[in-house]
Amino acid sequence: MEFSSKLLENAVNEISQLPGIGKRTALRLVLHLLRQPESQTFHLVNALQDLRTEIKHCNSCHNISDTEICDICANPNRQQEIICVVEDIRDVMAIESTGQFKGLYHVLGGKISPLDGIGPHNLTIASLVEKVKEGKVREIIFALSSTMEGDTTNFYIYKQIESYEIKTSTIARGISVGDELEYADEVTLGRSIINRVPFENSLKSS
Amino acid sequence: MEFSSKLLENAVNEISQLPGIGKRTALRLVLHLLRQPESQTFHLVNALQDLRTEIKHCNSCHNISDTEICDICANPNRQQEIICVVEDIRDVMAIESTGQFKGLYHVLGGKISPLDGIGPHNLTIASLVEKVKEGKVREIIFALSSTMEGDTTNFYIYKQIESYEIKTSTIARGISVGDELEYADEVTLGRSIINRVPFENSLKSS
Repeated sequence: MEFSSKLLENAVNEISQLPGIGKRTALRLVLHLLRQPESQTFHLVNALQDLRTEIKHCNSCHNISDTEICDICANPNRQQEIICVVEDIRDVMAIESTGQFKGLYHVLGGKISPLDGIGPHNLTIASLVEKVKEGKVREIIFALSSTMEGDTTNFYIYKQIESYEIKTSTIARGISVGDELEYADEVTLGRSIINRVPFENSLKSS
Repeated sequence: MEFSSKLLENAVNEISQLPGIGKRTALRLVLHLLRQPESQTFHLVNALQDLRTEIKHCNSCHNISDTEICDICANPNRQQEIICVVEDIRDVMAIESTGQFKGLYHVLGGKISPLDGIGPHNLTIASLVEKVKEGKVREIIFALSSTMEGDTTNFYIYKQIESYEIKTSTIARGISVGDELEYADEVTLGRSIINRVPFENSLKSS
């Protein structure tokens, strides 16, 4: 792409470094901003700048937060000794929106993935093990995605804490509510049969 | 969506105002920026800020430019009396990349579209008519998209300049090079037969 303006080219190049945004989309976004009032661009710029300079992570669960201890960790009504291990803030938001979990979270910040150069020390695993050592934890629920990286991470953490007397579990894998059996993949359907639940349990959640 | 941080929510809201970007995509982009070095966000922020405060438009063709007169208008080797009328900078870039046009451009900045509140006075039509009045123009090539708005805009401009003795033309509509006839729409195929060109012409361009 040949640009008639260095300023335009710069902006397009920077935007196109975001994941999933190519040069054409970036140009479309930039031209949109130029057609809007200046204030929109300045609000965007300020929001990004504030985000990057002032963002904090909860000292306890490592979730993104505006305070030293996040609202969930600071809530005395939540079960402090049950910890759900998740990858990032999106998983916390997803689980919170179900209203089914009343414990705390531990945000790892990623999964162990040697191919991407992410080892255990790039994640917040040590701080999770520390919590277990201090005897504060009764149950750990693994809620990472069931990919090779997710399973590896689960197993790595499990090995670090298996000598302590705490309960560990993973979220159930099975057929989505409302899905047709015939379209489910074999692995998921197989797991949903192995891990079948008493019929009375299925009545409770609905 | 419930966010655990106001800063995060702000950034997501601002980004999701861009066209084609919803809240989920915005959150993905923001989390990506947070995982990258701070410098990437600052480069992005500076590029957008500079763009919005320092961007100029060429005084003659109204294309985006870093100088008062853009490189194309300032180039003495281009045919100054042939003007191609386009909607925005993307069309200039597209035509320039063909290498087939050696005249100048006139960037309207949009199309007449009453539904979107865009009338002739929001575009740079007056300045185009001015150029024609000054007798600087020999031919005008309309290269707007062949939609209702594009055709309306072409016709509006045509009415303003028809009393002056200049040539007007529109870019040819027809079957794309390499396309199969059977998949072409009837209007395009019809126009390509009405506006057929001497066979020798088709040899020249290849």
